[in-house]
Amino acid sequence: MNGQTISDRIERWGLYEVWLTGAEDGNPFLDVRLSAQFKHKHRVVEAWGFYDGDGHYCIRFSPDALGAWTYVTRSDCSALDGETGAFTCVEPSPANHGPVAVCNTYHFAYADGTPHFPVGSTCYAWTHQGDDLEKQTLATLGHAPFNKLRMCVFPKHYVYNRNEPLYHPFAPAGAGGWDFSRFNPRFFQHLEQRVGDLCQLGIEADIILFQPYDRWGYSTMPTEADDRYLRYVVARLAAYRNVWWSMANEYDLMASKSMSDWDRFFRIVRESDPYQHLCSIHNCRCFYDHRKPWVSHCSVQRSDLSRAREWREAYGKPVVVDECQYEGDIEQGFGNIPGWELVHRFWLGTIAGCYVGHGETYRHPEDILWWAKGGVLHGESPSRIAFLRRILEEGPPEGIEPISRWAGGREGEYYLFYFGVHQPSIWTFDLPPSARYRLEVIDTWAMTIAPVEGTFGGRFQVALPGKPYLAVRIRKAG
Amino acid sequence: MNGQTISDRIERWGLYEVWLTGAEDGNPFLDVRLSAQFKHKHRVVEAWGFYDGDGHYCIRFSPDALGAWTYVTRSDCSALDGETGAFTCVEPSPANHGPVAVCNTYHFAYADGTPHFPVGSTCYAWTHQGDDLEKQTLATLGHAPFNKLRMCVFPKHYVYNRNEPLYHPFAPAGAGGWDFSRFNPRFFQHLEQRVGDLCQLGIEADIILFQPYDRWGYSTMPTEADDRYLRYVVARLAAYRNVWWSMANEYDLMASKSMSDWDRFFRIVRESDPYQHLCSIHNCRCFYDHRKPWVSHCSVQRSDLSRAREWREAYGKPVVVDECQYEGDIEQGFGNIPGWELVHRFWLGTIAGCYVGHGETYRHPEDILWWAKGGVLHGESPSRIAFLRRILEEGPPEGIEPISRWAGGREGEYYLFYFGVHQPSIWTFDLPPSARYRLEVIDTWAMTIAPVEGTFGGRFQVALPGKPYLAVRIRKAG
Repeated sequence: MNGQTISDRIERWGLYEVWLTGAEDGNPFLDVRLSAQFKHKHRVVEAWGFYDGDGHYCIRFSPDALGAWTYVTRSDCSALDGETGAFTCVEPSPANHGPVAVCNTYHFAYADGTPHFPVGSTCYAWTHQGDDLEKQTLATLGHAPFNKLRMCVFPKHYVYNRNEPLYHPFAPAGAGGWDFSRFNPRFFQHLEQRVGDLCQLGIEADIILFQPYDRWGYSTMPTEADDRYLRYVVARLAAYRNVWWSMANEYDLMASKSMSDWDRFFRIVRESDPYQHLCSIHNCRCFYDHRKPWVSHCSVQRSDLSRAREWREAYGKPVVVDECQYEGDIEQGFGNIPGWELVHRFWLGTIAGCYVGHGETYRHPEDILWWAKGGVLHGESPSRIAFLRRILEEGPPEGIEPISRWAGGREGEYYLFYFGVHQPSIWTFDLPPSARYRLEVIDTWAMTIAPVEGTFGGRFQVALPGKPYLAVRIRKAG
Repeated sequence: MNGQTISDRIERWGLYEVWLTGAEDGNPFLDVRLSAQFKHKHRVVEAWGFYDGDGHYCIRFSPDALGAWTYVTRSDCSALDGETGAFTCVEPSPANHGPVAVCNTYHFAYADGTPHFPVGSTCYAWTHQGDDLEKQTLATLGHAPFNKLRMCVFPKHYVYNRNEPLYHPFAPAGAGGWDFSRFNPRFFQHLEQRVGDLCQLGIEADIILFQPYDRWGYSTMPTEADDRYLRYVVARLAAYRNVWWSMANEYDLMASKSMSDWDRFFRIVRESDPYQHLCSIHNCRCFYDHRKPWVSHCSVQRSDLSRAREWREAYGKPVVVDECQYEGDIEQGFGNIPGWELVHRFWLGTIAGCYVGHGETYRHPEDILWWAKGGVLHGESPSRIAFLRRILEEGPPEGIEPISRWAGGREGEYYLFYFGVHQPSIWTFDLPPSARYRLEVIDTWAMTIAPVEGTFGGRFQVALPGKPYLAVRIRKAG
């Protein structure tokens, strides 16, 4: 028996691997087809395998049901075909809630039903910076409020990003070029390690499959190389429960790709991914048509969060405003807003029933900007974002729905008013008269929560501090 | 000879009056038609007269050319017809620059060529508050930065505006109603006094002819009463050089008026006004089509000043954003932004080549809110608006044209960068390489202007303080 598995007991939504040994000659990335059919009772799930170099082949699988599973491999290479095995799927460990999926139309939940309120950040090229900085990034994330991280597979070429990556995704060809038909397993092993590290920290890896900032040719590969790359990445990474797919960062800046390319990429990922992970695409100027059936949620770049509700309504899916400009002081307009403005945009998006993402771009003597390379956080927004995350987690588990220009929540049950720059010193609330509610005045910047004495119902006025960036939380009494 | 004039020497753009005595019986407001033809060399200008009560009739005229003028009256009442007179138009006093008109497509200038950069405020109902408060308002305006004031002819009924006006524009009819065919001269004499007071202070009176906030019936008069009212107001006020006409405040909230009513009102005012004063109309939600030929400039309500340039381009006329929400702390969203946010909006509009207006709505124990009743100013924005006005007056006399997202000015000559909430700590400027420029870093809130050492040209980088609400002024050296 060729098959070698890591363990015969695997936790639900954990990572199971079947390792096989096979041909090294020719080009196994092109020549060998490998998959396995995993069977639980009468249900069969097929997962694609991948070549990991040096004659090593692997099929990864993440079981979603408790109990006995068996598998049988399928390959056009006889040494890899027909291998069988069995394992038992056991209860997940306490921190493992499974992969995140869309829930309640505009919101998210883990597979075990725990709500997931995305509070994301962005470190586009963090996995290309070498061990020291990558470990520092992980240490920072261990104490940061973020539960999702946008990160590119490919290295990044851009302002503040001139360093060469540690690994390249393809084997070198002559004249500084790359052989797009031969992947570099070391590159992907490293990427997987980092995705796994994030999983350990409870952070979703929002994996960006293509992006325009490139000097190596990864943004302009031929069609068959693009498609093969997608299948390879999905075969390697889909079994990590914390994976989200992002077809691209700023897809609309990639002149060499057409809209039908993007549509095809979505179909390839959706066809290849046994778990149907969350799947979106991020714009620069023009939104992709998120109504298309393969898009699970909107991943948008826009700075005017007062319009967030429009996008919800336009697409009928969860809206994650992953980029609404970053806290920082660089010259580029996307990266020089103050922390309080970013926090303001988080709150605007929140009461509109959307989710907002963080990034940080303070200039650094060694060009280590969080948004690209990770490292440590310097800004004033993360602590306030942690505060907002706490508010979200104390709120309705189904998520916040937009109620009015000033408030989101769950009609009759929970209201989160947010006044932004507006500084009323009095406010008239109009709640259902049949119930009683408790009010708290929240200073979103000072991170204070001050209860208002008494209980309230119907139409009533409350004095407010008359300063900007206040919120009022209203919850049913008793 | 019936005619009685104030003087036989009148300054250019001053106010000349012909007073006549005629019929008191019947309804002179309806029955008597009166005008005068004023003649300067071969040129003839006809101005309408008005009945001022007690048998007094008046024709007002504002001469725009120096030298000898004669006039002859025309009336269907023989006692008022054929009266003649003469006067000499002399050089204006130093503070008299004549009426304001559109200049350079998107800007304004007084008739003597002096640029006018509108820096307006809003006291909708200030002339209805009685002498004490009105004099306090005038005293405040004497030290405030504003050179234009939006004010309604009719009294206002609204939140914080429940008091009865001192005078009513019409004669009382039975049952608390009004005889719309009989004006109350005392009302208009008082209004004129206030318009004249503003003129003395160098402030343009942006006179709002209709508005929706009404409990007396002035917003729902019959068609013929509307039209007669307009002609009467124009006959009385057009000779004041500081008059601007605003057909309405929030015309789109007046359900009883159709778009063809508004178009007719414009035509009536334009046909009746010998001086073709600036003429616009102010929206709540929906812009009037400012491309219509009788509109001199756009008078708009919008809070998102980052879009100001769009409106310039859409209408091809000067844009005055008279209402972009007010500094204050009331409950209504239009009246509770902090001073710094209002100042920010002023700057955004300025670099877009537009003009922005002020208002103030801080709660007051006696409901005396500047935006409606005048009084004194409490806010933090007026001093910063004065600072901006100084910047404008030190800038290009032709006005500021939008240049980029970040800057307005005159290409090659003058640039005013404004970074808003953005806080770059470095900036790359790209100026014509053939000239040398001096730079100043402006803190729009602290009201400081710090020169940057040296002269600059071409493409160069400058370190900036890395905080929000900074501007950079660039002027040609030497």
